[in-house]
Amino acid sequence: MTQGKHPFMTHHLNRGAGLALFFLLALVRADIVSAADPLPSWNKGPTKEAILRFVTQVTKKGGPDYVPPGERIAVFDNDGTLWSEQPMYVQLAFALDRVRQLAPQHPEWKITPPFKAVLEGDLAALQATGMQGLVELIMASHAGMTTEAFEGIVRDWLATERHPKYNRPYTELVYQPMLEVLAYLRANGFKTYIVSGGGVEFMRPWVEKVYGIPPEQVIGSRIKVKYSTESGQPELIRLPEMDFIDDKAGKPVGIHQLIGRRPIAAFGNSDGDFEMLEWTTAGPHPGLGVIVHHDDAERETAYDRQSSFGKLDRGLDEAAKRGWVMISQQKDWKTMFPAPHKPR
Amino acid sequence: MTQGKHPFMTHHLNRGAGLALFFLLALVRADIVSAADPLPSWNKGPTKEAILRFVTQVTKKGGPDYVPPGERIAVFDNDGTLWSEQPMYVQLAFALDRVRQLAPQHPEWKITPPFKAVLEGDLAALQATGMQGLVELIMASHAGMTTEAFEGIVRDWLATERHPKYNRPYTELVYQPMLEVLAYLRANGFKTYIVSGGGVEFMRPWVEKVYGIPPEQVIGSRIKVKYSTESGQPELIRLPEMDFIDDKAGKPVGIHQLIGRRPIAAFGNSDGDFEMLEWTTAGPHPGLGVIVHHDDAERETAYDRQSSFGKLDRGLDEAAKRGWVMISQQKDWKTMFPAPHKPR
Repeated sequence: MTQGKHPFMTHHLNRGAGLALFFLLALVRADIVSAADPLPSWNKGPTKEAILRFVTQVTKKGGPDYVPPGERIAVFDNDGTLWSEQPMYVQLAFALDRVRQLAPQHPEWKITPPFKAVLEGDLAALQATGMQGLVELIMASHAGMTTEAFEGIVRDWLATERHPKYNRPYTELVYQPMLEVLAYLRANGFKTYIVSGGGVEFMRPWVEKVYGIPPEQVIGSRIKVKYSTESGQPELIRLPEMDFIDDKAGKPVGIHQLIGRRPIAAFGNSDGDFEMLEWTTAGPHPGLGVIVHHDDAERETAYDRQSSFGKLDRGLDEAAKRGWVMISQQKDWKTMFPAPHKPR
Repeated sequence: MTQGKHPFMTHHLNRGAGLALFFLLALVRADIVSAADPLPSWNKGPTKEAILRFVTQVTKKGGPDYVPPGERIAVFDNDGTLWSEQPMYVQLAFALDRVRQLAPQHPEWKITPPFKAVLEGDLAALQATGMQGLVELIMASHAGMTTEAFEGIVRDWLATERHPKYNRPYTELVYQPMLEVLAYLRANGFKTYIVSGGGVEFMRPWVEKVYGIPPEQVIGSRIKVKYSTESGQPELIRLPEMDFIDDKAGKPVGIHQLIGRRPIAAFGNSDGDFEMLEWTTAGPHPGLGVIVHHDDAERETAYDRQSSFGKLDRGLDEAAKRGWVMISQQKDWKTMFPAPHKPR
C-alpha cells in the first residue's frame, strides 16, 4: 500500500458511504458553527462565563429555570453602557450645539443663564445651574417643532459631528463587546430594549442601524407632544414641557409603561440604573444584573464614584451582595469600539 | 391499451420523473395553500377587497407602494372594534363590580356620588356624574395595590364573569372577522398593536391569548405607578392619579410615545378613533383607515351617532371623503363571534 492511497479513501468510497460522509461532515460543521464563540471580543473569565451560563440556564427546554421566548426581555441603558458618555453625554453636546445655532434668534440668551454659560463656553457655570439649567436647555433646544422635523435635526447632527477625542462619528463609539451581547441575546430568543435616561426621540432615529434595536423598543425620557391639524395636515408638535424622566426609580416605571412585563436581564453602568437592575433581579425568574465598570483609562476614560456623567457609587458597594455581574472594561473586553468604517 | 393502464403512468414513471412529479405536486399544493381565503368570515364585496388590495399593495416587492416589514405597523382600537362594548364597556362592568365588592370597607360610599349611584344600581344617576364620576370610580377601584395584584384581580374577574346577554365569557365575545384580519396582517409581516381608550393594565393580562398580541404591543389609558421598596421587596404601586388618556387626539400621542413610528393601517369604530385614522392615513406611505359600523341589531347591537359607548358621528360623515373603508357588520361579516368553547 503506497502512501496517500489508503484503500478506505480510494476504493471503499461508494455512493452510500459518500452520502454518509456528506451528512457526517454536515453534522460536524453544524457543531463547529454552534460551538463558535458568540462573544469573541470578551476575554475568558467569570464575567463572560456568567453571561453565557445565564443564557444557557433560561433557554434550556425542560430545565428548572426555563423562560419562554416571549418573556425573555433584556433591557440596556444607553449612555455609558452601549456607547461612550465621556467627556459628556452626547445629547448634551447636541443641546449645546443647538443653543449656539439658535442664539442669533435669541439675543436675550447673552445675559440669561444657563444660555449665557453655554455661549461663553463656561462649562463650570453651566453645571452650577444644575438640573434646572439642563432642563431649560433641553426645552429651548428640543421643543417647538414637529416630531418629524426634530428627527431630521438629530440625523443631520449625528451624520456630521465627530467625537472630540476619537474624531469619529458618535454612532461608531459604541462598545463592540456589548454589540455582541445584543446579537447573542437576540439569537437566543430575547427581545432587546434600550431603557435610557436620555431623550427617546434623540435615540430612535439611529438605534436600529447601530444596535439592531427598532424604534418601538426604545424607552427614554420624553417631553410632551401635542396632536395638531392647525397647519392643514396632522402633526405632532413637541412642547417645552417634560412628560417623563426615565432615570433611577423612573426606569422600572418606564419599563412597565412601555413593555408591561418584568425583564429577566438588565445592563447598566451608573446609579441611574440601580432600580432597573433591582427590579429585574427580584422577579420570579432568574434575573441577570450586569454593570459596566469604566476602569480603562487607556482605551476610554476611568470613572465611577466622582463622575458628573455616569456616577457609579451605590452600585459599586452593593453589586457583589446582590449577585450582580461587574464588567471590568480593562480586564473583560479585548476590544472597546468596532473598527472604523472605511472612509466615505 | 386497456383502460387504467396508460403507458405514461405505468411505464414511464421512472425515478427522475417520479421526483419531478413530486416537486410539481409540491408546487401545486403550495399554490392551493397561498390561494386559500385568509378572511373566510368575510363576505365577498368592496370592504373585504379593499383590505386584501391594501395588503397586496404594500407587500409587493419592487412595487411603487412597497413598505418594508419593520414599518408595517397596524393599530386596532379594542372596545367595539375587536370585542363587544355593549351594553357597556367591559371595563366599566368590572369597575362597578369592584365598587360593590369594596363597599363594605367604605360605608361613606352609601351617600357619596358616584358610588351611591353604583350601589343603588342607578345607571342614569351614574351617567349624570359624567367623566369626573367615571374617573373617581376608576381611581377607587383600580388603584392602591401593586401592578401584579391588579393583574390577578383582572384575570380572576374575566375568568368567572359572563356577558349579560350572551352568557359567555367576555373574552369570547371578540369579532371573528377581526381575529382573521389580525392573523392575516401578521402573516404579511405586520406588527399588530392595540390602541385603546381603555386601561392598558386591564388589557395586557389576556390579549396575547385572545388576539395573539403580546402585552408590549398594547397602548391604553394609564394611571400613575410608583416604584417602591418599602415592603422589603421592589414593587410597582398603582396610584389614584391619571397619567395618560389614550383617546381622541391622545391616540396619535400614545402611538408616538410607545411605538415612535406612524402606523400604515388603523382600525376603529368610534369618534375616539378619528385622529388615529387621520394620523395613519396622512403619512408618506399609503395608509389604510377602517371603521367598524355597528349596524347589526340582530346579531349584536345597532348603534352609532347617539350611543353612550362608541359614539360614531364625525366618522360617519367624513369616512367616504377621506377614503376610509366602512365595515357593515351586517353585510360584510358572515360570523360575528367565534363558536363557543367546549364546556369546561
